[in-house]
Amino acid sequence: MSVTDHRRVVAAKRDRRTLTPAEVEGFVEGYTRGDVSDALAASFLMACVLNGLDAAETLAMTRAMIASGKTLSFDDLGRPTVDKHSTGGVADGVTLVFAPLAAALGLAVAKLSGRGLGHTGGTLDKLESIPGLRTDLTPDELAAQVAEVGCAVGAQSPDLVPADGALYALRDATATVPSIPLIASSVMSKKLAVGTDLILLDVKAGSGAFMKTPEDAERLAVACLDLATGWGRGARVAVTDMAQPLGDAVGNALDVAEAVEVLSGRFRGRLRDLVVAFAAAALEETGGVGRDDATARAEAALDDGTALERFQVMVRAQGGDPRVADDPWAVLPRAPVVRPLLATANGVIHAMDAEAIGLASGALGAGRLRKGDPIDPAVGIVVRAKIGDGIEAGEPMGEVHARGVDMADEAAARVNAAITLGEADVAPPRLVHGWFG
Amino acid sequence: MSVTDHRRVVAAKRDRRTLTPAEVEGFVEGYTRGDVSDALAASFLMACVLNGLDAAETLAMTRAMIASGKTLSFDDLGRPTVDKHSTGGVADGVTLVFAPLAAALGLAVAKLSGRGLGHTGGTLDKLESIPGLRTDLTPDELAAQVAEVGCAVGAQSPDLVPADGALYALRDATATVPSIPLIASSVMSKKLAVGTDLILLDVKAGSGAFMKTPEDAERLAVACLDLATGWGRGARVAVTDMAQPLGDAVGNALDVAEAVEVLSGRFRGRLRDLVVAFAAAALEETGGVGRDDATARAEAALDDGTALERFQVMVRAQGGDPRVADDPWAVLPRAPVVRPLLATANGVIHAMDAEAIGLASGALGAGRLRKGDPIDPAVGIVVRAKIGDGIEAGEPMGEVHARGVDMADEAAARVNAAITLGEADVAPPRLVHGWFG
Repeated sequence: MSVTDHRRVVAAKRDRRTLTPAEVEGFVEGYTRGDVSDALAASFLMACVLNGLDAAETLAMTRAMIASGKTLSFDDLGRPTVDKHSTGGVADGVTLVFAPLAAALGLAVAKLSGRGLGHTGGTLDKLESIPGLRTDLTPDELAAQVAEVGCAVGAQSPDLVPADGALYALRDATATVPSIPLIASSVMSKKLAVGTDLILLDVKAGSGAFMKTPEDAERLAVACLDLATGWGRGARVAVTDMAQPLGDAVGNALDVAEAVEVLSGRFRGRLRDLVVAFAAAALEETGGVGRDDATARAEAALDDGTALERFQVMVRAQGGDPRVADDPWAVLPRAPVVRPLLATANGVIHAMDAEAIGLASGALGAGRLRKGDPIDPAVGIVVRAKIGDGIEAGEPMGEVHARGVDMADEAAARVNAAITLGEADVAPPRLVHGWFG
Repeated sequence: MSVTDHRRVVAAKRDRRTLTPAEVEGFVEGYTRGDVSDALAASFLMACVLNGLDAAETLAMTRAMIASGKTLSFDDLGRPTVDKHSTGGVADGVTLVFAPLAAALGLAVAKLSGRGLGHTGGTLDKLESIPGLRTDLTPDELAAQVAEVGCAVGAQSPDLVPADGALYALRDATATVPSIPLIASSVMSKKLAVGTDLILLDVKAGSGAFMKTPEDAERLAVACLDLATGWGRGARVAVTDMAQPLGDAVGNALDVAEAVEVLSGRFRGRLRDLVVAFAAAALEETGGVGRDDATARAEAALDDGTALERFQVMVRAQGGDPRVADDPWAVLPRAPVVRPLLATANGVIHAMDAEAIGLASGALGAGRLRKGDPIDPAVGIVVRAKIGDGIEAGEPMGEVHARGVDMADEAAARVNAAITLGEADVAPPRLVHGWFG
């Protein structure tokens, strides 16, 4: 296609005409090849944000993104392969626990992760707080580890869906991120490029998520599911609560320590419940196991140490210090200052601004603002208080791990400011708003 | 403003929030300075195309564009200064006649023109087909000539509203041209940057214009008028017919020859009627002359030779061969092939695709596709037939001026294909749809 043709595609989307798959694919290919300028692509993206893309257009865009790079497939491993992805939230350490738990349940998990951009690190950043652990696995290493251990968490290769990386950076720079079809296409292209039997997707809704309402999250869930269906792939999508931090730990090493707590069966709460729900869904979907039985098996694998054992084997396979599974703080980096997080008022927690809590942790050094920036693995916040809890001024709600006392106090103040107190009792928000697929 | 601030402005327009003047001006300034990337500007422009700009936002954008460069003002000339601009059409030689006619009527016309991009040349290209004539007048030369002769037509300086040139090129490259507020702001920033007492604007509507319907043209007219009012400047805007070529000549030297015909009072028809209407409006507006009296004075200046005399003085002042006013074809370049334009069917002309006729002339070499391309001043088409005329196969409707016989035949076929014939009699379309201001 010529530049004139590409411009016609933009004009058509501007004028609310439905694009043919060839038009969408030609445009994305043109951008990947450099025939379409950033400026023309940006005007196209804004037209997509405002005029939308229908299911066929979104599938065509996803297809073009996948076609921009390599794809990954696995030889028959003798057991179902599962991928799990979250659209991102605060204290969302599900993947760290899910991968070894699913492996313990007889599934194979090949998880390719990105680095976090925003308040806290991503799964890769969290894992890399374990001394020695490497995530730059080659495709062969990844496949071999999945075959041997049952799970591996590696860095997403730049060869996989390169158009997504380029388009996402452009969207970020041009205020064209908020579009359900564009987000669905970005998320799912990376999942569909990896040949697993089942894709589990966790779409977060609430103050700590990109989708602020369950309704918007549901629209994204359906769009993602449509793409999986259109691609002929099995998928289940949950819309889950992010009206407050999911776990207690908001950092990197802190999240690993918390994951070990969950994997050893000691941690009870919403994080464990959600991991169990995803593991049970995976068993149901791939093994025809009934929901109650699947849930019981997942809980048992946490309580009997088999999930923790898989975690230890996975850490060792990736070069990390395996003692992290027995005694996390014997190996994880610790912040020099650890201060109790004290409540500053009395009342019942009615709401939490999870994003603000994430940003408070980011301000301690736990996150990055720009790609490539370093993160501080040791710092972060632990907030044990949850919506519905009663608190009293001076009562400890968790801890702040910081480089200095002033930073710790500042973070504690930000967390308190992010908590809305009331007098009446309130019920905790539902953990899972709904399942799709 | 930082890049983040600029991105917030785009997000606000995307989300249908009304922008403050400071936001709009800061964004345009940022783009002019290079702080805003082409990509971010393109996504902003698409958001403007789709979500619109209100009157205050459009005025702020216009103000920022004017502020991007120099402005031009005139010392008191002892008579009213008038600027006249057309949004562009086919056989639209009004300016060539209007400037000397208005000068003959005691007004001062300082006309800065652009070069044509599209089927035929712009006013500058047409004038430059007169041997020796130069349009690269300095601001001082322009002002001196206006004071002395009463009229001057020069090339728009790149110092005047440079942001408009940059933004227009970006809009052209990113399919973000069709937006009434953006077009109004582009047109009016160039007019408001020149300090004249009255701005006359001719917004074309029909098959040969950018605005295809009188309704769209009316919206543009009102937007332009609002900008003049917001700037505290006098303006009158007409929406006029471009359902067919306005004059007969569609070329460059051909248009000059036709202008001389109008200026000498020999040419009768819609081109003369429209020039008279604008000249009368200028007299009404600046001198409080009644409409009928103003019209009579304008017609008299064409019929008694005073307008032609001003034209001759203007041509001489700009270095052109003044004999063009007495005997155009003694000095204008002639095409080697001149063939009669013969009708190929019988009937009454119901419609003409004016743009197609313009493109046929462009294919002969009368226009340019890319900035900087040369044009051929000698070639073009003369189409005397108009909507409502009855024609018979074999009857001459005009002439084709070309470099070769094949090209001439091809152009004649294209003109015939652009004419829709019917059986019933039809009335010619109204010349002026309405006046605003």
